[in-house]
Amino acid sequence: MPVFDQTEYKERVKKTKEAMQAKGIDLLVVSQPANMNYLTGYDGWSFYVHQCVLVSLNQEEPMWLGRGMDANGAKMSTHLNHDNIRQYADHYVHSTVRHPMNFVADVIKEKGWDKGSIGVEMDQFYFTHRSFVELEKDLPNAKFVDGDVLVNWVRAIKSDKELEFMMRAGKIAEKVMDAAIENINVGVRECDAAAEIVRVQYQGTDGHAGDYPSIVPLMMAGEATKAPHLTWSERKFKSDEAVLLELSGVYRHYHAPIARTIFLGQNPPQLMKDTAEVVMDGLQKTLDFIKPGITAEDVEAKWRDAISHSTVVKESRLGYSIGLNYPPDWGEQTISLRPGDKTVLKKNMALHLIPGIWYEDVGFEIDASIYLTDDGNVSLFNYPIQLFTK
Amino acid sequence: MPVFDQTEYKERVKKTKEAMQAKGIDLLVVSQPANMNYLTGYDGWSFYVHQCVLVSLNQEEPMWLGRGMDANGAKMSTHLNHDNIRQYADHYVHSTVRHPMNFVADVIKEKGWDKGSIGVEMDQFYFTHRSFVELEKDLPNAKFVDGDVLVNWVRAIKSDKELEFMMRAGKIAEKVMDAAIENINVGVRECDAAAEIVRVQYQGTDGHAGDYPSIVPLMMAGEATKAPHLTWSERKFKSDEAVLLELSGVYRHYHAPIARTIFLGQNPPQLMKDTAEVVMDGLQKTLDFIKPGITAEDVEAKWRDAISHSTVVKESRLGYSIGLNYPPDWGEQTISLRPGDKTVLKKNMALHLIPGIWYEDVGFEIDASIYLTDDGNVSLFNYPIQLFTK
Repeated sequence: MPVFDQTEYKERVKKTKEAMQAKGIDLLVVSQPANMNYLTGYDGWSFYVHQCVLVSLNQEEPMWLGRGMDANGAKMSTHLNHDNIRQYADHYVHSTVRHPMNFVADVIKEKGWDKGSIGVEMDQFYFTHRSFVELEKDLPNAKFVDGDVLVNWVRAIKSDKELEFMMRAGKIAEKVMDAAIENINVGVRECDAAAEIVRVQYQGTDGHAGDYPSIVPLMMAGEATKAPHLTWSERKFKSDEAVLLELSGVYRHYHAPIARTIFLGQNPPQLMKDTAEVVMDGLQKTLDFIKPGITAEDVEAKWRDAISHSTVVKESRLGYSIGLNYPPDWGEQTISLRPGDKTVLKKNMALHLIPGIWYEDVGFEIDASIYLTDDGNVSLFNYPIQLFTK
Repeated sequence: MPVFDQTEYKERVKKTKEAMQAKGIDLLVVSQPANMNYLTGYDGWSFYVHQCVLVSLNQEEPMWLGRGMDANGAKMSTHLNHDNIRQYADHYVHSTVRHPMNFVADVIKEKGWDKGSIGVEMDQFYFTHRSFVELEKDLPNAKFVDGDVLVNWVRAIKSDKELEFMMRAGKIAEKVMDAAIENINVGVRECDAAAEIVRVQYQGTDGHAGDYPSIVPLMMAGEATKAPHLTWSERKFKSDEAVLLELSGVYRHYHAPIARTIFLGQNPPQLMKDTAEVVMDGLQKTLDFIKPGITAEDVEAKWRDAISHSTVVKESRLGYSIGLNYPPDWGEQTISLRPGDKTVLKKNMALHLIPGIWYEDVGFEIDASIYLTDDGNVSLFNYPIQLFTK
């Protein structure tokens, strides 16, 4: 039942240990659900309670630590030896007198891993301030260091198998956007359109089940186009309004985000048409430029240069690294396409370019989800780059 | 566009300030998305970046602080004076050289709130260890104290308007479970059933849009009934297997969780039938007992007593407080129905009772979502308490 074979996970753990050694980390406490999945295969909507994977330089296999009722899920979804699956009792959950990290500290002490340098994911959601306080209190001999985004950076370069999964997600993304364009019509309630979109997200294709995306369908219409992260309501779509769509196809937690803009009428405002032209042309020029060896900030500079003849301004970052993820974000929190990010792009990295432009009354969004090849890049999906009118 | 009128939010802020005074907290940094929504109305899938609401005893209105692109969403979804909506620049997002909490600290200093006692939500996801480190570094004159679950406890007692919303969620829950029972059949892919379920979750009823639940549909079938938090795949349902369903109807982030068990065949194993009888009878006796004045542990004791004549054992907690929530959890992290929880139940509290029983080969789940009235309790939905066979 684990999604990949054991070789794949061993390779990931090996790379993680190399990164740990480079940072002087003996033991890494991995709390972020995508990182836990990446290292072990562990899957399950159990990340509303504390859980973690321990990676020690002194043991080949990682350990999974979580709530008792989730231990069977760990046995089923990982290759881990059952000795490396440890469960805490239910009275640790949302208790005022004990904390799951006390249990984690006990296991660390039992293994004799409490005297070295312990890395924690300082700025990952799912590793709270209290998690740190409890570990620090229970492990007085340890030296704590920041291991934030260490596994995220290992995730940045995908295996061929992972890219195959992302291409499957891309196939689903095409169907998802088709469903959006088909179902968003004047007079339709936003919630009913969202329902048809998410249905296809979960269904997937004939061969491959869809998965829940790390972000729900975002469909900003009318006045809400000014506010990029609002969700749906009973409100009905009106004629001559724009709908900005940020969606994704997902296969086994691997994402292929897809964004397009629909105008519900035959005559979009001139500003929207002009913006769309500039943005689509700039995006295409940027895509033609992306290949291994250039930096993240080079990509953004190319984009800025490509639109410099216009009045379009994009203030937020142009894009970021994508792949395996769980709610609340499909971004990997590593590469950001923006000035100052000097990450050199490599083969098998995957990026989401999302130039969203918002004026006071008009917005336009379109995107590209790609991965880098030997000498260029490939799109995860085949979908028209255009402003849709209907 | 805010969901409730200003009076409702003012009352919530007033109660929060009373709880702050009782704990000696001058300023509370609220990071949990449901708490942020509760205090201001702020809504949006923006909780993948750092954001917060500040509640100060020295200012009537709370402040919203978040990413620049989400400020319009804050203006649209809250009653806040625009002076109390503050936005940080995009280069704070996933940066290695600056952190959104540096911006939060700047605002706290500007307001002169940096010399008193500052409460932080120590164990809420969305408030990371790094969030704390940055605040502590930037605010050397402040005394930091634990303000964890302070707002969650204010949320525990619902207003009549909130209960109306939960009853709407209950109506949606009925439709959601109908969709599950209709679409789960031998030979159907799990993902296709999940797709039909989530469709109804988002659609809602004719009058009221559904909302995204804080937990995706959980449908454990076959071997996976041993692992309560696994999600769907391409796998097809088989004859003579059980499917355990944990779903929810949701209206404007208010939840009515609903759980039932289906057996795909006419002859469930005797152990399952016997367990179902015991659990359903025990649940009914427990429901008959719940009213204001008893404690959370009294409820669990009643349940344990009601099933004591049988061999059924429920090791994890029997239930918890529910209401407004965002992913990853619909539980409020306050009341737990288990030994040791001496919370006295009050009118307008809402509870989810979920006696899930798992043996090595057989599982059974059923639930009740209720709120307390003057002298008893009322169910959020009207759905048969039975083991479904088909």
